[in-house]
Amino acid sequence: MTKKEMIYEGKGKKMWSVAENSDLLIAEFKDDLTAFDATKKGNESGKGALNNKISTELFGLLEQNGIETALVETISDTEQVVKKCSIVPLEVIVRNIATGSLTKRLGITEGKELPFALVEFCYKDDALHDPIINDEHAIILGAGEQKELDYIKEQARKINAILKPFFASKGLKLVDFKIEFGRDKDGKIILADEISPDSCRFWDAKTGAKMDKDIFRQDIGGGSVKVAYEEVLKRILN
Amino acid sequence: MTKKEMIYEGKGKKMWSVAENSDLLIAEFKDDLTAFDATKKGNESGKGALNNKISTELFGLLEQNGIETALVETISDTEQVVKKCSIVPLEVIVRNIATGSLTKRLGITEGKELPFALVEFCYKDDALHDPIINDEHAIILGAGEQKELDYIKEQARKINAILKPFFASKGLKLVDFKIEFGRDKDGKIILADEISPDSCRFWDAKTGAKMDKDIFRQDIGGGSVKVAYEEVLKRILN
Ligand SMILES: Nc1ncnc2c1ncn2[C@@H]1O[C@H](COP(=O)(O)OP(=O)(O)OP(=O)(O)O)[C@@H](O)[C@H]1O
Ligand SMILES: Nc1ncnc2c1ncn2[C@@H]1O[C@H](COP(=O)(O)OP(=O)(O)OP(=O)(O)O)[C@@H](O)[C@H]1O
Ligand SMILES: [Mg+2]
Ligand SMILES: [Mg+2]
Repeated sequence: MTKKEMIYEGKGKKMWSVAENSDLLIAEFKDDLTAFDATKKGNESGKGALNNKISTELFGLLEQNGIETALVETISDTEQVVKKCSIVPLEVIVRNIATGSLTKRLGITEGKELPFALVEFCYKDDALHDPIINDEHAIILGAGEQKELDYIKEQARKINAILKPFFASKGLKLVDFKIEFGRDKDGKIILADEISPDSCRFWDAKTGAKMDKDIFRQDIGGGSVKVAYEEVLKRILN
Repeated sequence: MTKKEMIYEGKGKKMWSVAENSDLLIAEFKDDLTAFDATKKGNESGKGALNNKISTELFGLLEQNGIETALVETISDTEQVVKKCSIVPLEVIVRNIATGSLTKRLGITEGKELPFALVEFCYKDDALHDPIINDEHAIILGAGEQKELDYIKEQARKINAILKPFFASKGLKLVDFKIEFGRDKDGKIILADEISPDSCRFWDAKTGAKMDKDIFRQDIGGGSVKVAYEEVLKRILN
């Protein structure tokens, strides 16, 4: 597989077309870190490679458990080949424990275990700051039909039902995570993008220590994420 | 019916307990106007009486069309007797045409006719500024079970299906409106609070003129609402 042209540079990845096959893309994981609508910026050597490895492992685990994903093959430390999708313009957030914007917006107690896995949709639009929406907004905005939204929520809950106990067995609480779905060339909705400590919150089950991008967001212990991301990868592989 | 004790003073109404019957309240409509989270304040003599009359007419129309409401009897220019409810902590917004926060939050074109009547829930909490939520948030916040939320949305759509053609026949576009539901003493969910130009947007079908609280919000023609509210009442009664 050969990179042809960079078709998109995001905050966390560069997306390349592939010389050999127009149905595929190469996702190249960057070392950049951003938070708060990209008003806070950082960079840590090796972060991209860690996310690539972690996301590869998690997508593999999900595939083994019957979740269709866009991942085809991981081809280098920082690169993976993926099925080119038309991304559903939703950030799908699954929450097991209340923190972050949920506690701020709705006054729910920080750290509260939610009675069920809460699924939220945000409209993927940087200029609008990814506003939270309901199903009817998603339909009006053209993200999909109700039955597709129901499928996405069902998949999101299945993914949580696989990942939550997996991380629990590794001594990590899966607090919440953001995923994206895309329509593949046949129109099938599949899991795309990445699942990494950039897009999840993990709390150490024993100490409560944060082991995700909140380290960068909140400048915890100097704000360097690498030791924590390495520990997450180590536990996933163990 | 005799007012006993003022149990709540809101921005638009005073709510009184009733000496003769503890299952009832008297709602007294005030002349105060507020906007933008009550940072903008005004007062216009006669506004409360107009809202009381308009809401009485609309609740009557809805009752005739099979919608159960909390209104018992209108007893003076500014007062009505209502069934005392436990208010469901949701501002239920129904939108036919995009304007206001919908266009700002989601980038939908101002004035666009929506493909269907859009129902939004905001969590009724002044301190949190009534944040927009989805059904799962509403359940977690204790507003109701899914089947109750479905019932509320169904009622909201029925109310719109009654009011929209009614106003159309009066030369007014019903752009959007906010309603509240409550549980009566038997736990039945019924329409409560008010429906008035304070809580609706009406646009004149011919001229497009705003005939609702946006006149106050946006200081249209000096910001006085009375002439427009009187015109809305006149058309309702014609
Ligand atoms: N399989 C795929 N096919 C097509 N696009 C994809 C696929 N997987 C991810 N993407 C998209 O490629 C981009 C990846 O870049 P990155 O994650 O850095 O974006 P970002 O900065 O988060 O910004 P945004 O997600 O808001 O576009 C995202 O837009 C993502 O939605
Ligand atoms: N039938 C009813 N039984 C009990 N409470 C009611 C009933 N109808 C309306 N209410 C409540 O009485 C109050 C009416 O006051 P008003 O409309 O002025 O409140 P507000 O300033 O809009 O503030 P808020 O609605 O946020 O409390 C509201 O809290 C409303 O929810
Ligand atoms: Mg991204
Ligand atoms: Mg009110």
